[in-house]
Amino acid sequence: MSERTETGRPAGQQENGRSAAYDSAFLRACRREPVPHTPVWFMRQAGRSLPEYRKLREGIPMLESCMRPELVTEITLQPVRRHDVDAAIFFSDIVVPLKAIGIDLDIKPGVGPVVAEPFRTRADLDRLRDLDPSDVPYVTEAIGLLTAELGATPLIGFAGAPFTLASYLVEGGPSRNHEHTKALMYGDPELWADLLDRLADITASFLKVQIAAGASAVQLFDSWVGALAPADYRRSVMPASAKVFDAVAGHGVPRIHFGVGTGELLGLMGEAGADVVGVDWRVPLSEAARRVGPGKALQGNLDPAVLFAGREAVEEKTREVLSAAAGLEGHIFNLGHGVLPTTDPEALTRLVSYVHEQTAR
Amino acid sequence: MSERTETGRPAGQQENGRSAAYDSAFLRACRREPVPHTPVWFMRQAGRSLPEYRKLREGIPMLESCMRPELVTEITLQPVRRHDVDAAIFFSDIVVPLKAIGIDLDIKPGVGPVVAEPFRTRADLDRLRDLDPSDVPYVTEAIGLLTAELGATPLIGFAGAPFTLASYLVEGGPSRNHEHTKALMYGDPELWADLLDRLADITASFLKVQIAAGASAVQLFDSWVGALAPADYRRSVMPASAKVFDAVAGHGVPRIHFGVGTGELLGLMGEAGADVVGVDWRVPLSEAARRVGPGKALQGNLDPAVLFAGREAVEEKTREVLSAAAGLEGHIFNLGHGVLPTTDPEALTRLVSYVHEQTAR
Repeated sequence: MSERTETGRPAGQQENGRSAAYDSAFLRACRREPVPHTPVWFMRQAGRSLPEYRKLREGIPMLESCMRPELVTEITLQPVRRHDVDAAIFFSDIVVPLKAIGIDLDIKPGVGPVVAEPFRTRADLDRLRDLDPSDVPYVTEAIGLLTAELGATPLIGFAGAPFTLASYLVEGGPSRNHEHTKALMYGDPELWADLLDRLADITASFLKVQIAAGASAVQLFDSWVGALAPADYRRSVMPASAKVFDAVAGHGVPRIHFGVGTGELLGLMGEAGADVVGVDWRVPLSEAARRVGPGKALQGNLDPAVLFAGREAVEEKTREVLSAAAGLEGHIFNLGHGVLPTTDPEALTRLVSYVHEQTAR
Repeated sequence: MSERTETGRPAGQQENGRSAAYDSAFLRACRREPVPHTPVWFMRQAGRSLPEYRKLREGIPMLESCMRPELVTEITLQPVRRHDVDAAIFFSDIVVPLKAIGIDLDIKPGVGPVVAEPFRTRADLDRLRDLDPSDVPYVTEAIGLLTAELGATPLIGFAGAPFTLASYLVEGGPSRNHEHTKALMYGDPELWADLLDRLADITASFLKVQIAAGASAVQLFDSWVGALAPADYRRSVMPASAKVFDAVAGHGVPRIHFGVGTGELLGLMGEAGADVVGVDWRVPLSEAARRVGPGKALQGNLDPAVLFAGREAVEEKTREVLSAAAGLEGHIFNLGHGVLPTTDPEALTRLVSYVHEQTAR
């Protein structure tokens, strides 16, 4: 991390208009360029696994913590300081843009997002308006603070994908089987398409705010989309996800796409417009590369549960991941899903250092 | 269903030693022989979706209901009567054999199986002894009653696979991420292998009791194994599952294997010794056939959530499944996972009839 610049340029930006992070291992890997070492970051690296996070969040509800720029900045920086990861991920929640446009929802501890009035009919569409930068001033402010602090360390912007947002809105909360969501998707395809299209606009606007403020990559999380078969994804989800990716193209900001349990969808998720496809631990990276095809980098994919098995096992499984990644055009090391809350943070720090050592060129 | 035989032969058995169900569409499809129509049954067809089941279970704890032969018989028969499915599935629970050998566990409503003292060390192995038929007299009795009642309708026996049993024992209950299970699997492979080997013996014994009593097929459920990558499955799970399949070979009883989210494992699950591989809804059957290879039938794979989308959508998605199944050597129609508890039972009855109509030869 570097100090704020004193040149009058936007913080984190170089003379040539490129961000200070442009030549980082992470962004180089996203662009499939040679890297000094395989870059590493972890989904949910900022969060419950860190005692300093739990302390900072004490008594502060989740949604409120996403709306306080100094808090967001500190939470986002904590894992960068502690683990020496190659990228920061903007601390936010999937439902933040929905809250910002006035949807009545809350994040209940131990449950997740709960929407007061679930979406089920065409009339509900009127509750979705596009997001304006002025709806999320705290995002712009936090990212300004962050890029100044981060210097050459890239900041990854963050948003939930239309399908996952729709699932929360339609179910009214987290759901194991997504019955209501699929009932709408299969039963009223036109309303479904309109709903996803509006969510695509909101998501794109939310990511554009983050890019304008200085995020140097974005990750679109489709947490629940692994519940769909490929034909349904292509027909009912891909147009909306593609709209988001299209809207944020042309900024020189790599676009990452991830969902857990999406082995069957990897090719389509790349096709939707991702530059980097995230892979969960169920699919070896070499097989993922076959499914995704050329011209994309891959991100992943150590099983987060491996971190409970002791150092030797972690190193062995890490070598397996690196070995499967050997032929890739670009590889960003990550877990195959988010850091589990009870993970020992020291195991994560050691893992970053181990990947760096093993891949130093 | 037919009446009890009066010939002195075991109920449900013909003069030639073949069961009365031998020529049923279901068993023919398992053997990849021509069928009069595609056979249909549903995982969890006996259970919470049926009002008559909820009434019968009122005030009776789950484990107790599995140990009362008349109750098991009635619950198993309910969906056969109501839906006209092509097979009955023995009503039981994955943890019944563990309870039967003395493990202190209970099934808590809304939670699932809870094991009083989770398994974590080598000393815990001593708590696992093999299962003897005398441990489960209620199983033998219930299956005797059932085969007499079912006549030419086949009864599918049922057991949980070693990995899934191990997960309950090690976690102490249902788990989303299987941290402790994987910590043991990755961290102490020898103890893990010994644990799975013992569980394989118990599972095999439990299935052999069911076969001896008259079950004409068996399904080995590996509910949680979709949490593993293929290399880990092959190394740490497949030997135990193969041991179970091997132990129940040679009885002329088809062996079905299923786990949700197992797209990456389908080939290996067939290789473990299954005659029929169950497929969840995420993988089109045509692609599943490619992964499983020749010489196996497939079972599946309508998304259970489709049943919430109205008749037209159900029929459309059913035609998609049947169309993907068109080239298979043998196909048993099923959902891609268990019937969801809030499913309208009439939608299931209509679905059976629709598949029969569409596939009548």
